[in-house]
Amino acid sequence: MGSNKAAMKFDLHKSIEILERTPLVVEAMLKGVSEEWTAKNEGPDTWSAYDIVGHLVHGEKTDWMARMEIILSDSTNKKFTPFDRFAQFKDSRGKSLQQLIDEFKTLRKKNLLKLRLKKIDSTELLKRGIHPEFGKVNLKQLLATWVVHDLNHIAQIARVMAKQYKTEVGPWVEYLPILNR
Amino acid sequence: MGSNKAAMKFDLHKSIEILERTPLVVEAMLKGVSEEWTAKNEGPDTWSAYDIVGHLVHGEKTDWMARMEIILSDSTNKKFTPFDRFAQFKDSRGKSLQQLIDEFKTLRKKNLLKLRLKKIDSTELLKRGIHPEFGKVNLKQLLATWVVHDLNHIAQIARVMAKQYKTEVGPWVEYLPILNR
Repeated sequence: MGSNKAAMKFDLHKSIEILERTPLVVEAMLKGVSEEWTAKNEGPDTWSAYDIVGHLVHGEKTDWMARMEIILSDSTNKKFTPFDRFAQFKDSRGKSLQQLIDEFKTLRKKNLLKLRLKKIDSTELLKRGIHPEFGKVNLKQLLATWVVHDLNHIAQIARVMAKQYKTEVGPWVEYLPILNR
Repeated sequence: MGSNKAAMKFDLHKSIEILERTPLVVEAMLKGVSEEWTAKNEGPDTWSAYDIVGHLVHGEKTDWMARMEIILSDSTNKKFTPFDRFAQFKDSRGKSLQQLIDEFKTLRKKNLLKLRLKKIDSTELLKRGIHPEFGKVNLKQLLATWVVHDLNHIAQIARVMAKQYKTEVGPWVEYLPILNR
């Protein structure tokens, strides 16, 4: 069995391992899949797989890199712009799921190239910005959050799709924790 | 926003869409990733990504197809063998994660080929077997469960990996539901 001893410490290289895979994971999950799986959500005020990919695209455009730039800049204004968690409902309009996936792949690749070129060192990882709610956060926490945010939405895509079969599994529903979240 | 109106009805073709993608999703998530992500679990009596892939391999060998055969057979003994949810701790011994992923890919491909060749019709989907705990279940429910079981473990792999950065995200922990499950 695996072990959880010695929780993992932040590591830029290992973070990029996850970040560079996410668009490929999303594509493996959703490319060519019937709309019944990808367009439905979990009920009122929840997101479909399509909505989630739109949200990931928006994050690449306006959130992660912009916040990193604020932290690393020489400006004294270190305040982050609040992240619009509903922007995708406007931004994705008229786009197919495959277009959104392609956009996510392209943007993520560009962003990771930029990130690598910055050759961030351990001192820079401790530089800080001001989060609209939490106050001071550092670059290391922002980058770790980017990774966990990806994994969170991969799990969410799996859950939204699973929920479409909630009644079809019959009595097995009680053995499947994903259907009860 | 997506809609959840009219819950999805079981569809064999659409079920296979998910089943055939799972090994590729798992590979996209885990291939070439550092052991720190894949060998650690969420704490005592929980599974690492490595353990989860071993569990998926075991399911291909002993669970889903075997139960389908019991349901479709002419035998009057319709009882399923209980599924050993800990078999992977013995079976995976000595195998690398990549070996397990390859094994999963091969077994799933064979099983889906067998499934397709059976050309299951709507009458057969209602044939039943006896689950060791639930009693009567039908083939449609078994196959829907196979799909949801895949998605459940994809979400679990994402969660186990995310948990490795639980302290590294700092105050963002409260915005990331995956870290609080």
